[in-house]
Parts: sequence; structure tokens; C-alpha cells
Amino acid sequence: MNKIEHIGIAVKDIEASNELFAKLFNKKHYKMEEVASEGVKTSFFQLGESKIELLEATREDSPIAKFIAKKGEGVHHIAFDVTDIHAEVERLKNEGFIVLNETPKKGADNKLVVFLHPKSTNGTLIELCQEII
Amino acid sequence: MNKIEHIGIAVKDIEASNELFAKLFNKKHYKMEEVASEGVKTSFFQLGESKIELLEATREDSPIAKFIAKKGEGVHHIAFDVTDIHAEVERLKNEGFIVLNETPKKGADNKLVVFLHPKSTNGTLIELCQEII
Repeated sequence: MNKIEHIGIAVKDIEASNELFAKLFNKKHYKMEEVASEGVKTSFFQLGESKIELLEATREDSPIAKFIAKKGEGVHHIAFDVTDIHAEVERLKNEGFIVLNETPKKGADNKLVVFLHPKSTNGTLIELCQEII
Repeated sequence: MNKIEHIGIAVKDIEASNELFAKLFNKKHYKMEEVASEGVKTSFFQLGESKIELLEATREDSPIAKFIAKKGEGVHHIAFDVTDIHAEVERLKNEGFIVLNETPKKGADNKLVVFLHPKSTNGTLIELCQEII
């Protein structure tokens, strides 16, 4: 894993949170994007080589809606940049991690993504992501 | 804020988690450090320009023990590197953020640190940190 690609934060109202985090970081988000397949609207802030991704649910069965209902707003996942996502999935499966989707799926920000079950990672939802070239 | 300095993850057993995260990252932690004033034992992994900090409580009244009792293991805080922590505290207070300790205190890894109340930051505990030179 090369770096922290982004930290995903679940929020109830992405417009209000865009304003809040712009004050926190003293800079504005640089893009917004909807991922219809996941039922989320996302917003990105750049900080050094990493990003903060705000996530708002666009429908009730979105993973973000379920997360907020259960745990409230806050950090939803940590995403790590990988060079070869298929090789990393194989390596991590062999190490005993539970892979939620073995076939990488298209996420926000032009990435292929795979999630690891938090049960196998000390309660933290981990995302692997590889830029689609 | 310059970059994500580290992500702090609360764990029950830092030795077991060191092994787990070494498998996840395919590299070992590079140091451990105890912060007696906070009642925590810490361990650091480097990923690009940022770190993952594992935190285990060393006593029952440690903030990490309380966090795990309430929420379970998982992401405890996000720390951002700042150039001038006193100026950032002033700026953020003026923006309406709730500063938990206005006077920076000595944290792990040779840093001056200030925490913002998660109530004012969408449920995410934010740490500002400045390297002590």
C-alpha cells in the first residue's frame, strides 16, 4: 500500500458539511460526484497527497444511511492507494482478511475499489483503491 | 493544514494489532511510544507522507479505554499537520470550532497537539499537530 488515498466521512447534509470542512481546512472542496450504484453523493478536499471524502446518502438503503443510523456521523472508511488491486486482494485473502467484494468495483474519483470487512481489521472499514488509467 | 499527519485507531491489544496491521500494510510498525499523561501506548506505521497510529489504553481512565467501552475498536481521531498551531487555534476558534485544549500539549511522536470537539466537526475528533523543533 502506497499511501492514504482518502478518509471517507459519513455526513447527513453534504452542503452544510462542505461549508464546515472548508472552514476547518481553510480551503474549499474541489469537486463533487454522485455514485448512483452506492447511493452516495461525495465531495473531495485535497490535503497533501491525500483527500478527505465527505459522503451523504442519496437513498435509505445506501450503506451511508445505514452507517449514520447505527453510529452517527463520522469516519466511515480509510482508503489506501495500491498499485495492483488484484494482487493485493489475493495477498490479503491469503493473510486471512475478509474481502467484501473480490471483484473490484467502480467507485468515486475514477477508482477501482475493494472493501475489507471491519471484523477482520480491528473495527475499521478498509478500502483498497487503484486509479483507472 | 498541510497534510494528514496520522490517523489514530483505538485497539484493545496493541501487540495483536501490530501483527494484524503489519499483514494489512505488508510492513512492520517502525516505533512504539508510551504517553503516560494520556494513559496510552502507541505504535506507528508509515504510509507515504502519513502515519497510522495504533492506541492502546494503559489505564481505565484513559480516553482510549472510554472510547472503546462506548464505541468499540476503530478510528479514534484524524490528525492534521499545521505550521503554526497557535495561529490555527485562534483561526478555528474564530470560525466557531470548540477547542478542547487551547494550550497545546505534548503528544506522542514529538508533537504539540490540540484537539477539537467532535460535536463541532461532524462527529470526527480532529487533532492539530505541530512538530516540536
